[in-house]
Amino acid sequence: MLFRQLFDKESSTYTYLIASGRGREALIIDPVKEQTDAYLGLIEQLDLKLVRAIDTHTHADHITALGDLREHTDCMTLMGEFTKAECVSDHVREGDTVDVDGVRLKALYTPGHTDESFSFVLDGAGQREDAVFTGDVLLIRGSGRTDFQGGDPYKSYDSIVNKLFTLGDETLVYPAHDYKGFTASSIAEERRHNPRLAGKSAEEYAAIMNNLDLPDPKLMDVAVPANLACGR
Amino acid sequence: MLFRQLFDKESSTYTYLIASGRGREALIIDPVKEQTDAYLGLIEQLDLKLVRAIDTHTHADHITALGDLREHTDCMTLMGEFTKAECVSDHVREGDTVDVDGVRLKALYTPGHTDESFSFVLDGAGQREDAVFTGDVLLIRGSGRTDFQGGDPYKSYDSIVNKLFTLGDETLVYPAHDYKGFTASSIAEERRHNPRLAGKSAEEYAAIMNNLDLPDPKLMDVAVPANLACGR
Repeated sequence: MLFRQLFDKESSTYTYLIASGRGREALIIDPVKEQTDAYLGLIEQLDLKLVRAIDTHTHADHITALGDLREHTDCMTLMGEFTKAECVSDHVREGDTVDVDGVRLKALYTPGHTDESFSFVLDGAGQREDAVFTGDVLLIRGSGRTDFQGGDPYKSYDSIVNKLFTLGDETLVYPAHDYKGFTASSIAEERRHNPRLAGKSAEEYAAIMNNLDLPDPKLMDVAVPANLACGR
Repeated sequence: MLFRQLFDKESSTYTYLIASGRGREALIIDPVKEQTDAYLGLIEQLDLKLVRAIDTHTHADHITALGDLREHTDCMTLMGEFTKAECVSDHVREGDTVDVDGVRLKALYTPGHTDESFSFVLDGAGQREDAVFTGDVLLIRGSGRTDFQGGDPYKSYDSIVNKLFTLGDETLVYPAHDYKGFTASSIAEERRHNPRLAGKSAEEYAAIMNNLDLPDPKLMDVAVPANLACGR
């Protein structure tokens, strides 16, 4: 399997380019507009045909490349069924699978950071560990804020504890952001060592999340409306 | 296999923590002093016993964590046979293998960025792709400068083209640095698409490297002497 984790330093965003091999169809998860040329260059060098550009949710801290990638590659753009981004051409519901030329993702509805966030589970097919792309709901030793865009700490807790943490221990966790120098984790690690969640009740988690006192993302007033138009 | 790629933002350094699984002995490659506490925390959470801390070469842009990790974990510190760091307890020569509880690395002498640089090839043992940790000699779509510490563009070319590029096409390339948002590449990708090397003769490569006109690393006057004392 061809798996490339890419990093946008400006927004600390991780983007994932995946295909079953060189010369095959590919998908990309959580691409950043400013990196579009880098993605297109890599896609060409790896002889890939991009057919799906996926956002886990409507990002508030960077502008999506979904629209630009569609413009350049004729790929379909894909989000969860509850997105308000009317420009998106394809929608998934809980339990749907996305099949791209030998790569299989399963969609999980994981609200909490936003009310329309999905996670995507990659089937390693025995060739590599399974992996889950958690967007901003579950971060490495952290979790995405729950104070805007329909965020809700109780929904976040439920999504993480009752849905993501039921995946296999060795499932690798690939979030949309990291600020501390981690690139991946595993479900077992987060279940045991995520300081906001390990041994915490939903009420304790909600108290933590409701007291984060974070400033609004710098780009929020620009990024959210832009992303509702797929970044175009 | 437990494989964690870690990133130090300040110096854009990648560090690799590897073990055959939870609860086993582990090794770390190119650790950064400022991240020592983060490494020790992760090692404890993953129930690992660190037994080898490896530097691919004497870094000029960050201070190594080798000495601090030895102090905290009693691990052995390891570099190639030509290092001038007298504090290092274990040395490898071309073709040597480093075995750590089911993880096997093979040492390759790859001078050019410095005259004492080694690369290390990880045997995926059919469970994952083989991988090569290239230090600074081969970077993703680039290569490490050759203008100090015994650097030599002809040796760099020879190390990359006649040694690293003879590894299997699918061998993953994990460098000690990246500045452009890549986390990994493959030997086939670099052979075909590294702009300094693809289709270039040794003379053309040397001309490129001799005209980079880079400023000295900010930390060079501090880092090199510190690293010759394993960062202590």
